[in-house]
Amino acid sequence: VTARGVDDRKTVGEALAWIDASVRELAPETVDLAGAVGRVLANDVAAAIDVPPFDRAAIDGIALRADETIGAGPYNPLSFRLASSAEALPTAAAVRVSAGDPLPRAADAVASLDRVQIDDAAGTCEVVDALAPGSGIERTGDHAARGAALLTRARRLHPGDIGALAAAGIARVPVVRRPAACVVQIGTGFAERGAPLRPGLVYETNGLLLEALIERDGGSVVGALRVDRDRMALRDALSRVGGDIVFVVGGTGRGPRDTAAEALAAAGELALHGVALRPCETAGMGQTAAGTPVFLLPGAPPACFWAYEFFGGRALRRMAGRDPAPPYPRRELASARKIVSEIGVAEVCPVRRLADGRVEPIPGFAESGIAAMARADGFVVVPEGSEGFAQGAMLTAYLFGGNSRE
Amino acid sequence: VTARGVDDRKTVGEALAWIDASVRELAPETVDLAGAVGRVLANDVAAAIDVPPFDRAAIDGIALRADETIGAGPYNPLSFRLASSAEALPTAAAVRVSAGDPLPRAADAVASLDRVQIDDAAGTCEVVDALAPGSGIERTGDHAARGAALLTRARRLHPGDIGALAAAGIARVPVVRRPAACVVQIGTGFAERGAPLRPGLVYETNGLLLEALIERDGGSVVGALRVDRDRMALRDALSRVGGDIVFVVGGTGRGPRDTAAEALAAAGELALHGVALRPCETAGMGQTAAGTPVFLLPGAPPACFWAYEFFGGRALRRMAGRDPAPPYPRRELASARKIVSEIGVAEVCPVRRLADGRVEPIPGFAESGIAAMARADGFVVVPEGSEGFAQGAMLTAYLFGGNSRE
Repeated sequence: VTARGVDDRKTVGEALAWIDASVRELAPETVDLAGAVGRVLANDVAAAIDVPPFDRAAIDGIALRADETIGAGPYNPLSFRLASSAEALPTAAAVRVSAGDPLPRAADAVASLDRVQIDDAAGTCEVVDALAPGSGIERTGDHAARGAALLTRARRLHPGDIGALAAAGIARVPVVRRPAACVVQIGTGFAERGAPLRPGLVYETNGLLLEALIERDGGSVVGALRVDRDRMALRDALSRVGGDIVFVVGGTGRGPRDTAAEALAAAGELALHGVALRPCETAGMGQTAAGTPVFLLPGAPPACFWAYEFFGGRALRRMAGRDPAPPYPRRELASARKIVSEIGVAEVCPVRRLADGRVEPIPGFAESGIAAMARADGFVVVPEGSEGFAQGAMLTAYLFGGNSRE
Repeated sequence: VTARGVDDRKTVGEALAWIDASVRELAPETVDLAGAVGRVLANDVAAAIDVPPFDRAAIDGIALRADETIGAGPYNPLSFRLASSAEALPTAAAVRVSAGDPLPRAADAVASLDRVQIDDAAGTCEVVDALAPGSGIERTGDHAARGAALLTRARRLHPGDIGALAAAGIARVPVVRRPAACVVQIGTGFAERGAPLRPGLVYETNGLLLEALIERDGGSVVGALRVDRDRMALRDALSRVGGDIVFVVGGTGRGPRDTAAEALAAAGELALHGVALRPCETAGMGQTAAGTPVFLLPGAPPACFWAYEFFGGRALRRMAGRDPAPPYPRRELASARKIVSEIGVAEVCPVRRLADGRVEPIPGFAESGIAAMARADGFVVVPEGSEGFAQGAMLTAYLFGGNSRE
């Protein structure tokens, strides 16, 4: 790293290849089902019990012996005595059951309430259908036999899965451990939110931003520290930090006090500094002497955001067992305007969605900082080999899903 | 409600209309920015300070007076003395700055390091461009002026928004209050997860399922109770419950001990019992005497799940200020098989996605319970006026986003 700085920059593809070769899914841990929503299964899970665990009524109706309904029909209703006990069924008797009730012993079918006439006063009911054995009931293990495959590894558990696991007798599940992240911020010119802003300070932004991103991606921030703009201070911090992954924010550029890359090289390995992706050209990556991956994120908040989404976050999501791509829904949408980009550098271009569904770039994004991101509905990426998109071209937009009521 | 039960069933459209007319967004509350990800803005938010709060360097480079660069060019490099202080700029001097540094007083441009030659030994640098005033710098308030609109109400805050708000000096934000939900389960035949399963019991499923769903939708479960299958017990419970919304699980059907609808009618108002949506035809809705919305969800876990997603969850999401539709990404996909459905009743049909991107229905879903949902990648809804879809037809699939690595 010279005074001229980041001249040896790599392509986005080279950066992603380094990440994918360097970072692996973390080991499993076992968690209670109640806290498992959104976690990623580390192993296949099989049913611990038969589901259902006993023969039961599948519908509301009357339970009876199917062979006693032979010959029943609209012109030949058969009468059954209504028994009150659900334990065992006498001959020529029927028992009212609700869906889910255990089937009385000796019963092998349930007639729907729609298809029977109940005479409560007489204690009888009439059946007009000949029922096949098994109709209207669920046998032990019908939904899932004990030991049968239920969910496969790599599945991110959604609420319905939690229900399926609970029903199958699973109390705890093996999931990929949450990546523990350390955030190291370089510099001292920050005011804490809520405090008055003294001259020359800016409000602390990147720490809060990264914590929100890391938690969204299934990680947790276990350490947050600030170090001065000093190579030795950062090198020492990098040799002390714990956790599974480290994010260093600030000091990545070519200014007089930008020493993040030098410090990482001194504390372990600087694999790559400088990526042909605007606006995070000064991002870098490497590892500590102990082998913990370290990502250097630019200090300007939009650049920090994108460097996380494309590089640091990719590593964290891989560790968490998630899809490594930026976690936004993708849609093929038409561009309402021409989008211009320089050849040789890929570019993240925040866009707004118009009422007609097309997208248009947010003008002057690079100049207008993170506040402009609040006006964006999503973004497109112009690849490094492209000069941009013509008006009307179809492009892949990543959508923030910002407005809750569309 | 007669022994025959739910004959007066309503269409899905009628049920949704009752919900939309009965349930409103909750009042705002103010929360710290650190806990605001995923919350919905209750009011517009303006920048509390100018962003940036002072004139600063936008790039790494040297700060100087633009008018002193007039005449500079590749064949006429102009030399500047490198000053060390960043406080105020002497004439014919330049100061090295990093992006984000306050601009030295009297400087009005920053030349990029790419375009200058620095001679550290001599303490000078040469400039080969005539710079316009303002180039390479950001003026106070350039990104957002104090008081300027930043985010508009109804926006669901994503991590990038948190960064924008922090940078703009916002410490606390007005968001829609979290709906507080009460879950009342009817029946006693449940084993707790982890405990042995005694004969005739099933593992508790719906409580855990609903808690996961309610939290996903921005609510929280503030009360969970179990009542016997008894009309008076449930009526009493409904007159005691607190919170913004109540979910009653079980006892909605036509069996001998299904008294949820009667109990709600006695405790307040039963607006609707029975909806033409399979598999949750026995769902119901109404309100307590105090006006708290109550949803009756069937006890079979898949029916409970869908009745929540389409009806109870819709109400909760409206209260939370979110999009009321089931919160799954929608995709237009081709059906790999014919999907058959009965006219007169809408039907939720879980589907699997094939490797070629098409979807196929999960066979025998209605018979195979919640364990089958674990095999689904999403679902389609066959409207009540439709007999289903032909093979190859394009249909709107809601996707669970289950597998994390696709």
